[in-house]
Amino acid sequence: MTDPANDATPDPATLPAGTLRALMTLADDGGRFSMIAVDQRPPIFAALARYGNRAPSDVAYEEVAAVKGVLLEMLAPHASAALLDPVWTHPHHLRQVPGGVGLLSTLEDHAFELEAGERRSRAIPDWNVAKIKRCGAQAVKVLAWDRSDVSAATRDHQDGFVAEIGRACREHDIPFVLELLIYPLPGEEPGSAEYARSKPRLVLDSVRHFTEERFGVDLLKLEFPAELKRTAEFSAGAFDGQRREAVYDLDEVRSYLSELDAVASVPWVVLSAGVGPHEFAFNVELACLAGASGFLAGRAIWYDALEDYPDLAAVRERLDRISVPYLRSLSAMAQRGRPWTEHRKYLGGVAVAGAGPRWHAEYGA
Amino acid sequence: MTDPANDATPDPATLPAGTLRALMTLADDGGRFSMIAVDQRPPIFAALARYGNRAPSDVAYEEVAAVKGVLLEMLAPHASAALLDPVWTHPHHLRQVPGGVGLLSTLEDHAFELEAGERRSRAIPDWNVAKIKRCGAQAVKVLAWDRSDVSAATRDHQDGFVAEIGRACREHDIPFVLELLIYPLPGEEPGSAEYARSKPRLVLDSVRHFTEERFGVDLLKLEFPAELKRTAEFSAGAFDGQRREAVYDLDEVRSYLSELDAVASVPWVVLSAGVGPHEFAFNVELACLAGASGFLAGRAIWYDALEDYPDLAAVRERLDRISVPYLRSLSAMAQRGRPWTEHRKYLGGVAVAGAGPRWHAEYGA
Repeated sequence: MTDPANDATPDPATLPAGTLRALMTLADDGGRFSMIAVDQRPPIFAALARYGNRAPSDVAYEEVAAVKGVLLEMLAPHASAALLDPVWTHPHHLRQVPGGVGLLSTLEDHAFELEAGERRSRAIPDWNVAKIKRCGAQAVKVLAWDRSDVSAATRDHQDGFVAEIGRACREHDIPFVLELLIYPLPGEEPGSAEYARSKPRLVLDSVRHFTEERFGVDLLKLEFPAELKRTAEFSAGAFDGQRREAVYDLDEVRSYLSELDAVASVPWVVLSAGVGPHEFAFNVELACLAGASGFLAGRAIWYDALEDYPDLAAVRERLDRISVPYLRSLSAMAQRGRPWTEHRKYLGGVAVAGAGPRWHAEYGA
Repeated sequence: MTDPANDATPDPATLPAGTLRALMTLADDGGRFSMIAVDQRPPIFAALARYGNRAPSDVAYEEVAAVKGVLLEMLAPHASAALLDPVWTHPHHLRQVPGGVGLLSTLEDHAFELEAGERRSRAIPDWNVAKIKRCGAQAVKVLAWDRSDVSAATRDHQDGFVAEIGRACREHDIPFVLELLIYPLPGEEPGSAEYARSKPRLVLDSVRHFTEERFGVDLLKLEFPAELKRTAEFSAGAFDGQRREAVYDLDEVRSYLSELDAVASVPWVVLSAGVGPHEFAFNVELACLAGASGFLAGRAIWYDALEDYPDLAAVRERLDRISVPYLRSLSAMAQRGRPWTEHRKYLGGVAVAGAGPRWHAEYGA
């Protein structure tokens, strides 16, 4: 609602009813996202292989499904939403997501095509936006690998992949949560000082590109645009005991985050991308202070508990003892972030598109 | 999950993923429904006309929308789900339903065709199951007027109306919440002892009919199958100071409720149908003790607060002071009811239909 007493208040932005409702179900009542991901695939296969002493290819479907069920059972009740994959998790463990907790479904396949080291994303075969809407999930989550310096063919492929999903999300009136991840091209060393130095620019380029309106994104799931292990303040080994060459300091990191927030044309959350719990807590705090609306993360929260695999009772106990309090502390930090409804896109508030006595007739017609 | 240690445990019942998820969002975490209805139309028009001193036809669209917004704002946060109409409420007040509270949408028009006193239901023009699913609502609510003793033509019309909606709900994988209401035929006096005497049989006939699997109902919204004002225990005027002829006693009422519970092949909730708050509290308690899984009600909860209309601040204050605590007391009573997942239909538990590694491929295909 606009305030008639204040001419400076802009008109409310509008969203289609289904998208607005679903975004509300993913956030807490204050508009922050504390979302838990259990849609990981290769990292889970690898953990079960490692702690079960066999090859990833020897890990059975049922074992993966069972572990994901335990993660969801212990963590979903403490999250504002949960992200499930449709193969190992959704069909078996839907009952583990409380009704008041939002539900996201993953669309992209964990396998991608490689063309001269460039990654081209694709959807899980036989899974699509229509099915995600139909099964009651409240958002379509898609990871797009991205580099601003790839070939035109890879650029076109990734743009087409993302734009097509954006169109389908509008067609079915469901939020589009786009995750962006940069990756090393041939010859680049992901753990190196040089790669860390290039990260802010690569992440910012990626956000700048996919935040364009033509892609139809409602919420961005972004990686932290720097490596805290490579800041002057933390490079002595604060997180893992390993000393590294520093390539920036915290003030510079804060400026990358401010720039990222200025570039993102829609609300955004931060992801954990395999960093440990200690480092991720700083990521969440810094990101939220810079304007993020919370987090959507998995491994930083539950990965360590898998060390006790295959003893599922021990995994469950460790999740309860360590991961649940950690998740709650992240949720508390997320309260320092910006409610998604207060993103500058929604400066005048947010209302249902086409509201009025004919809405029901014109909606989706 | 079946318990391998106990051969007597039946296999879990299955529901399509979208329907299962949505039912979970409507209930509280314990499986009981405390649902608030603000989809009423003629009762709201009448109240605004009466307390605003004019004819119902002089009540403007915006006034109805505004009042419904106040009801929702004050009550939805205390309910497990909220039922909205798509004309006055949904487009304007979606933001008043917290994300963790379930959302139902009404499909039937408040106007019905009359054929020799027999009521034939119809949908709101230009509103349908596909739009309800699309806009993110988690159930389709339909009121069907019913009498077991109507003409074959009216029977066919009502059966066709309900069965068609049931089919559409399966097509879009969304729960079907069917409300059944009996009504007086020409020559019958709704306030009479005779009508009260006929009520248990009429209500039971109606439930017995529409609980058949061909109608595809997931949750029944049922009227209390007797009039407590006409029981020996309450006929001296306990609820409204008016003495009436008693036509049954509480033990008989309990037996009607048991019969109703035995007849209902799916979980059920009780509705308020215009009875006052005192009487409705007894209805909820008796129904839940007999097997109901909670309530879906409006007028008993908020109607009295409309006496202060058009002073919306006073309406809001009265909702806060009286209706909210009353709603919470009803929710507490609902905890004595049967969780929907423990209805005999789900004796072996409830799981996603088709669960397995190919679910995502076969679902909705």
